[in-house]
Amino acid sequence: MNTFGYKFRFSTFGESHGKAIGCIIDGVPSGLKIDETFIQEELNRRKPGLNRYATPRKEDDKVEVLSGVFEGYSTGTPISLIIFNQNQKSKDYSNIKDIFRPGHADFTYFHKYGLRDYRGGGRSSARETAARVAAGSIAKLLLKEVGIIVQSGICEIDGIKAQKYDFSKVSSSEIYALDLNKEEEQKQAIIKAKKSHNSVGGVALINVKNPPIGLGEPLYHKLDAQIANAMMSINAVKAVEIGEGINASKTKGYDNNDEIRSKGFKTNHSGGILGGISNGDDINVKVYFKATPSVFLAQDSVDINNEEVNFKLKGRHDPCVAIRGSVVAESMMCLVLADMLLLNMSSKLENVKKIYQKGS
Amino acid sequence: MNTFGYKFRFSTFGESHGKAIGCIIDGVPSGLKIDETFIQEELNRRKPGLNRYATPRKEDDKVEVLSGVFEGYSTGTPISLIIFNQNQKSKDYSNIKDIFRPGHADFTYFHKYGLRDYRGGGRSSARETAARVAAGSIAKLLLKEVGIIVQSGICEIDGIKAQKYDFSKVSSSEIYALDLNKEEEQKQAIIKAKKSHNSVGGVALINVKNPPIGLGEPLYHKLDAQIANAMMSINAVKAVEIGEGINASKTKGYDNNDEIRSKGFKTNHSGGILGGISNGDDINVKVYFKATPSVFLAQDSVDINNEEVNFKLKGRHDPCVAIRGSVVAESMMCLVLADMLLLNMSSKLENVKKIYQKGS
Amino acid sequence: MNTFGYKFRFSTFGESHGKAIGCIIDGVPSGLKIDETFIQEELNRRKPGLNRYATPRKEDDKVEVLSGVFEGYSTGTPISLIIFNQNQKSKDYSNIKDIFRPGHADFTYFHKYGLRDYRGGGRSSARETAARVAAGSIAKLLLKEVGIIVQSGICEIDGIKAQKYDFSKVSSSEIYALDLNKEEEQKQAIIKAKKSHNSVGGVALINVKNPPIGLGEPLYHKLDAQIANAMMSINAVKAVEIGEGINASKTKGYDNNDEIRSKGFKTNHSGGILGGISNGDDINVKVYFKATPSVFLAQDSVDINNEEVNFKLKGRHDPCVAIRGSVVAESMMCLVLADMLLLNMSSKLENVKKIYQKGS
Amino acid sequence: MNTFGYKFRFSTFGESHGKAIGCIIDGVPSGLKIDETFIQEELNRRKPGLNRYATPRKEDDKVEVLSGVFEGYSTGTPISLIIFNQNQKSKDYSNIKDIFRPGHADFTYFHKYGLRDYRGGGRSSARETAARVAAGSIAKLLLKEVGIIVQSGICEIDGIKAQKYDFSKVSSSEIYALDLNKEEEQKQAIIKAKKSHNSVGGVALINVKNPPIGLGEPLYHKLDAQIANAMMSINAVKAVEIGEGINASKTKGYDNNDEIRSKGFKTNHSGGILGGISNGDDINVKVYFKATPSVFLAQDSVDINNEEVNFKLKGRHDPCVAIRGSVVAESMMCLVLADMLLLNMSSKLENVKKIYQKGS
Repeated sequence: MNTFGYKFRFSTFGESHGKAIGCIIDGVPSGLKIDETFIQEELNRRKPGLNRYATPRKEDDKVEVLSGVFEGYSTGTPISLIIFNQNQKSKDYSNIKDIFRPGHADFTYFHKYGLRDYRGGGRSSARETAARVAAGSIAKLLLKEVGIIVQSGICEIDGIKAQKYDFSKVSSSEIYALDLNKEEEQKQAIIKAKKSHNSVGGVALINVKNPPIGLGEPLYHKLDAQIANAMMSINAVKAVEIGEGINASKTKGYDNNDEIRSKGFKTNHSGGILGGISNGDDINVKVYFKATPSVFLAQDSVDINNEEVNFKLKGRHDPCVAIRGSVVAESMMCLVLADMLLLNMSSKLENVKKIYQKGS
Repeated sequence: MNTFGYKFRFSTFGESHGKAIGCIIDGVPSGLKIDETFIQEELNRRKPGLNRYATPRKEDDKVEVLSGVFEGYSTGTPISLIIFNQNQKSKDYSNIKDIFRPGHADFTYFHKYGLRDYRGGGRSSARETAARVAAGSIAKLLLKEVGIIVQSGICEIDGIKAQKYDFSKVSSSEIYALDLNKEEEQKQAIIKAKKSHNSVGGVALINVKNPPIGLGEPLYHKLDAQIANAMMSINAVKAVEIGEGINASKTKGYDNNDEIRSKGFKTNHSGGILGGISNGDDINVKVYFKATPSVFLAQDSVDINNEEVNFKLKGRHDPCVAIRGSVVAESMMCLVLADMLLLNMSSKLENVKKIYQKGS
Repeated sequence: MNTFGYKFRFSTFGESHGKAIGCIIDGVPSGLKIDETFIQEELNRRKPGLNRYATPRKEDDKVEVLSGVFEGYSTGTPISLIIFNQNQKSKDYSNIKDIFRPGHADFTYFHKYGLRDYRGGGRSSARETAARVAAGSIAKLLLKEVGIIVQSGICEIDGIKAQKYDFSKVSSSEIYALDLNKEEEQKQAIIKAKKSHNSVGGVALINVKNPPIGLGEPLYHKLDAQIANAMMSINAVKAVEIGEGINASKTKGYDNNDEIRSKGFKTNHSGGILGGISNGDDINVKVYFKATPSVFLAQDSVDINNEEVNFKLKGRHDPCVAIRGSVVAESMMCLVLADMLLLNMSSKLENVKKIYQKGS
Repeated sequence: MNTFGYKFRFSTFGESHGKAIGCIIDGVPSGLKIDETFIQEELNRRKPGLNRYATPRKEDDKVEVLSGVFEGYSTGTPISLIIFNQNQKSKDYSNIKDIFRPGHADFTYFHKYGLRDYRGGGRSSARETAARVAAGSIAKLLLKEVGIIVQSGICEIDGIKAQKYDFSKVSSSEIYALDLNKEEEQKQAIIKAKKSHNSVGGVALINVKNPPIGLGEPLYHKLDAQIANAMMSINAVKAVEIGEGINASKTKGYDNNDEIRSKGFKTNHSGGILGGISNGDDINVKVYFKATPSVFLAQDSVDINNEEVNFKLKGRHDPCVAIRGSVVAESMMCLVLADMLLLNMSSKLENVKKIYQKGS
């Protein structure tokens, strides 16, 4: 169950303090130029230690291509990417070794699997998402070939909302802010929480430009259903909205409908998806991250023997996981779209004939 | 892609105006008592024509078991359920035959598949969800055997929110209201929209009591990820929240964490899921339905030749799809949980041994 | 696990003495002309009661299309086919109700599922294969659109081997014989076994003409691997050979290799598959059916209480299941190829671009 | 499509001359003792260069565990195994760089994927099977925990058949011979072929002792169907037999049936599988390998421009791939059985209850 996708699929492995994390990407069409610099750049956007709004922990996240690429191009065989962990040696976990950290997966992993990998979360650590970004970069390269652009940014931190969404400025913002007018206020909220040993939540907006009409395989593999699955599988995500999302439930039908003219839709309340299929308009998805559960205040909990304890967490953690999380969400969007792109190829008989006609 | 689930999986077929709709449920353990009356009762909760808050269209939704059951018990082979359509003969669709109804899947289905099944939406019609409820009723029977209770109700209509959630009163409410104090106001909103040829949205709350700890298969098949997939695959759903959902993104980490005592969690902001795995607490999920796009006001659109038109829809439709949708969402929750229940059986070696030990 | 295929996939349901058997075929491209007469003809080739070389049991096997077809063409939604059972009322099974028939699945189904559906084999009955032929007929219609021909015949009965393979005469032979010179001898072997209350085995040859190069998804979804899976899933099949098959293990490498000239391969020992991928030559597969285990001679067995019994089976059964089985094997070949055809569409980036280029 | 299995599944990556090959094994229950020495020993049985009956090419095949294991036990998360290639630097391939070697996958890979990875076969190389053996060793460890034994040996080389099957002597034979009386003759056949620059085929017998009754998920995931899939996915395999296999097609029904007594089956013609489900008797499968296509005699072929050539292959290759192939087939059997073992756990409701009953 560590595999996602049907035709363009990836599988990941690795724990936060194991030797390495990585992924196998299966179903990449042959002939795709694999730009290793680009893969690394995508990973760099997610990597920790970039600035004071992220965890001070350093990881180089140096990615290596092990297979599936020959002379710079994909061969159609599985592409394996690996990132060796540098902080592999476990630090001192003695104070939380047997304690379930509130808001973390410690409790559920222990009961499901019957053992406790106390080293920084193990598989449930956000470290695993580096493998997603690595896989997502390959998906993004494929999407580019057919003109699809995927981008993301932060539209809310600690309840402070962006008033406008400007993706062109995201890369110049340390917190990937979509609204530079709100950036400072959002930054202050993060710093304030950090100083009080607490943490804040945030919201990422993922936008897709130029999607072809027709992506999404009804009914249980609808485009929005797969997006929801992909986003909710990211650590700390607690809600997903497509287009107007929750607002659509408070609006009258007439007002929420997107009327159509010969040049396209008049509005885009739907978020670019109708009946689970892309309609050609921008796809817009909001992903809600809870505040990181790693706070440095005294908390009540129990240990693996169900003995009650009150403890304080130590260490280094992101004060707001949404920031780096937005890059992960963007990668998951790329992975969903790449899968849908390949799945949709056989929707019509005429497309099947186009591929198999003699002389082709 | 009309199949959902891995170990307990179902596939559906059928269009709104075809001969029949139905499903195949695969992976049902043998020896489960299949109560046909119960299956019918579940379908009756979803069926149209019940009262003036639903579409006046009548369908008996009489279900028939075709296979997989012998002398009242499941045999371990696929259970096939079928519902023959009564309104099979197409009414007069001449006025919308070639027009894409705003907010509907007409536009995207036409472009993806290259043809137009104009009869009431075809496969994208909410009629398909009857097959989900049929399948869900089998899942619910399985869950009952291990003590898991799944229930649902309406917590918001047209922005009017329930102040408390009382599942015991839902079945006595024509709009499945969770808060009877708000029921009348919510009903009035529906009637008002209906009278003005418009429609309203709403929100369903799905609750699971007594789930075992350990359901959910990280990472891409996490319990919340699968729930999000399942819910977002339902017609008209635009957002899904787990537990506190969006609120969790506006709350400090310390306040959002659920501290733990030896008797259990002090709070349940997480919605019963940590790291994608059930923690034993109630699972709570909110599902947001947009207002039904079938409104009877003049709208701009285009036809299949991209000619611009302005037209008025005729016919009979739900003024608020969330009501019957809540039953569908409840069914999808049952289907996800049944799958997770079977998948989780092999999480620990000791469980494998328990099944295969000699003499067992 | 009653589903086969990835992109073109089918699921079946139904028992030999239940109300109906049927299938859902998912992933059929839209725009395929669905010729219901053809589907019925394919089923007629498999149906029982045709002549004295088959079981005298009569079943009309009348197929009905329930969904997925609109105005004669596939719509891209699931195609559901159903065949209502006529012999639904169970005959008198009292003499074998609790006995495990040797060579049948009674013993294993009972132990796996813990109950005994004694009515003629239930799900393990060859009756289920009618649903495969129904699904296979849709696959065959798709293959025809790109020029692929699939055919089958009997190349051996009770050890009597065809000396030549002439597919053009198969339909005129009551036993689907590939070599009419051997037909009479083969028929006599069947009649002789039948008269002595025994049964015989046989071998079917499946041939594919004009396959495109490139079908098959290495490594675990190789074309030959999927064919082997498909064939071995048919009742009574005990061996599968690709091309020279077993002979290839007794031949020197140099002699078994197919040398290549600019016009194609000089020989076809490989059976048209190299490295799990079709090479454009004819695909040839031999499928070995054991003699039907239903013989009318006294046999030792046990009942469900493990009490030893000696009993004689009554009833009507095929004296040689390979004959009707060859039609099933041909259908399974169609189903594998249809799946491979769609899966292969995205093997190269240039094909992806061909579908998504603007203006297409 | 480089993934095999449903509940216990593995994915592999890597080419013969890339940086590394490896696998991710997903679905391993937690708490399984992972003996790294055992994994290495299994790989050593398959590794090249062991003696003069195998390729003289040397590879240490040193395996490394990257994830999924903590303090010596599986954690329930994906286990990743990696083997770095030592012969990574490509030797001189100039003489076959653009030529399709007869009997190899060069031709089909080129046409399917549109490019030529000439370095020793790339993904289609038998080198990939090392990853299968690595994965299979984990499966074998799981099977041992419930008492299932899987073993293999060579029962035929170049048409010279073993007269008896003695698995206890296999490990002491350089060619894994099941009949030491035939070993010398079989060895001579290999040496003779080698000296004449040719190669020979062979047959492996895979045997399973002590399987539980009930493994196999009808209909398209029957035990024998999955075994056939698994075996036919191995390089050079052209036929698979279950139990009596082809003989069963030449035997009368009465004689081929396995009669039953209270202590078990009187015979085992079925190969331990009835109706696609294990019956508790030994599972016996024969796997037929063609002679390795790499022969050092002049052969006709074409190059990637379809120019005709006559060329002689150089290099080092196994004169009989069946020998090392038997270890791969044994591994694939372990992988199929491990998957079936976990899938079968939910066949009966009583087993589901056994896992979820309170206090468990």
